[in-house]
Amino acid sequence: MRLGSINGRAWLVTIDGRGVDIATSSAGQFSADPHLLFECWEALRHWAQGLPDDIYVPINPEALELPVRHPRQVFAIAANYRAHAAEAGVAPPEQPLIFTKFASCLTGPCDPIAIRHERVDWEVELVVVMGRAARNVLAADAWSYVAGLSVGQDISERQLQRLGPMPQFSMSKSLPGFGPVGPVIVTPDEFEDPNDLALGCAVNGVTMQASRTSDFIFSVAQLIEYISHLVPLYPGDLIFTGTPEGVGATRKPPIFLKPGDTLSSWVEGIGTLNNPVIQEQIV
Amino acid sequence: MRLGSINGRAWLVTIDGRGVDIATSSAGQFSADPHLLFECWEALRHWAQGLPDDIYVPINPEALELPVRHPRQVFAIAANYRAHAAEAGVAPPEQPLIFTKFASCLTGPCDPIAIRHERVDWEVELVVVMGRAARNVLAADAWSYVAGLSVGQDISERQLQRLGPMPQFSMSKSLPGFGPVGPVIVTPDEFEDPNDLALGCAVNGVTMQASRTSDFIFSVAQLIEYISHLVPLYPGDLIFTGTPEGVGATRKPPIFLKPGDTLSSWVEGIGTLNNPVIQEQIV
Repeated sequence: MRLGSINGRAWLVTIDGRGVDIATSSAGQFSADPHLLFECWEALRHWAQGLPDDIYVPINPEALELPVRHPRQVFAIAANYRAHAAEAGVAPPEQPLIFTKFASCLTGPCDPIAIRHERVDWEVELVVVMGRAARNVLAADAWSYVAGLSVGQDISERQLQRLGPMPQFSMSKSLPGFGPVGPVIVTPDEFEDPNDLALGCAVNGVTMQASRTSDFIFSVAQLIEYISHLVPLYPGDLIFTGTPEGVGATRKPPIFLKPGDTLSSWVEGIGTLNNPVIQEQIV
Repeated sequence: MRLGSINGRAWLVTIDGRGVDIATSSAGQFSADPHLLFECWEALRHWAQGLPDDIYVPINPEALELPVRHPRQVFAIAANYRAHAAEAGVAPPEQPLIFTKFASCLTGPCDPIAIRHERVDWEVELVVVMGRAARNVLAADAWSYVAGLSVGQDISERQLQRLGPMPQFSMSKSLPGFGPVGPVIVTPDEFEDPNDLALGCAVNGVTMQASRTSDFIFSVAQLIEYISHLVPLYPGDLIFTGTPEGVGATRKPPIFLKPGDTLSSWVEGIGTLNNPVIQEQIV
């Protein structure tokens, strides 16, 4: 099942860009509110599997919005790919390193990234959307708590990140527009192996990151086990799982995003974010 | 105006422990949902000022809950008192140092702090509750965006905090029960000087922290200016403003919380949190 949001309403979305409004097509059996669907995820998946193909209608891909608008908690993992830890000069961590992206930074798959700083960098990431409340979950059971997977960009302002005596990850990665997520949430059963997905990003068509999630230091299941032993997870919570090698800041010379760029970010089997970079207008 | 929450409903609460159910007493003019009141804060304050004293009824202080149940963003400031920065071995920062407390840790003024670790520490803090959306606010205007002030405890697990190559502030300070807030939200006009409030905490009646918010490195207004220039603030967002000197970890020998302790935390003019410390039952 592939779920998107259009005008705040939940839609089923096919990989070839057609869709079905869930509340309308189910005659109200299922809510239009994406957040309320987590409670009946398996029933929804079952219903979706039985739908005839001819009720899907063409949709405008640019109409797809942030698929989870109000997560209560957003976890983000630092240095979770070996090659990225190396380029960042960090030893592979022995436990997941966790910060947050503040909710106000989350935006949709085609929304602009408005920048006012000079050192704004990309970080394509697999995003996990939690489906059920999770507490003290074992890795072996962890996937059953996942609603689905999405694509995210952990846009990062590198100067702010390094300001002061301790890294300012949460703030420097939470400026407005710094958290595009989408275009859809894809349930784990849609993937041949959800633990080995190609992902990457490109600036103006030039590939900057290209890796596979099998290079994770901590797998999705291990992250859920670790986090849920410390903190309860809620339906709709997001986990940004970390970025692979190829960020701009560690290139020689460094490359950063500038107004006029287009940032494309993809994960195999999910889709692509296409975010234009614009100059922030300070009001 | 002093606002509390009882059974999920907003109450006016006097300093001597009497209260009025806002929705009932206003015949529905104002919502019972504390979160919806931010939209009509000034009208509510005006209405509350006109209430006769004899409609207040005695309330059980232990019935008061977390006054803001679903903040969209929780900001927490590290090293914001000179004497605490010194005891922690950190130079006074030149910009606010910001992490988050994940929403699942927020609890009420009398709720237990369940611990399973050996190095759990106290940090009494003034908590700012935002009343209006705030973006690029100047310090001179900042107080007009504040709904009110509350008392918070930034309970911290020191071993987890120092695990790995970068400080794990957000996770180590977000274990369940690690964010008591309350007992009420007090509007700024209730204080003679909201920039100079005594605050402190005691373990089993022994004072551990006692300072004044006038010792802040960054004032409430400066924090709002700084944060709102980076990230939009929403009504109901919380800012934990940092803790003064006297935490347990830097004492010689260190002192930590243990099951059976009672932690009392207060800010002048707001009230006191009384949180029992218990052993966490792992389920």
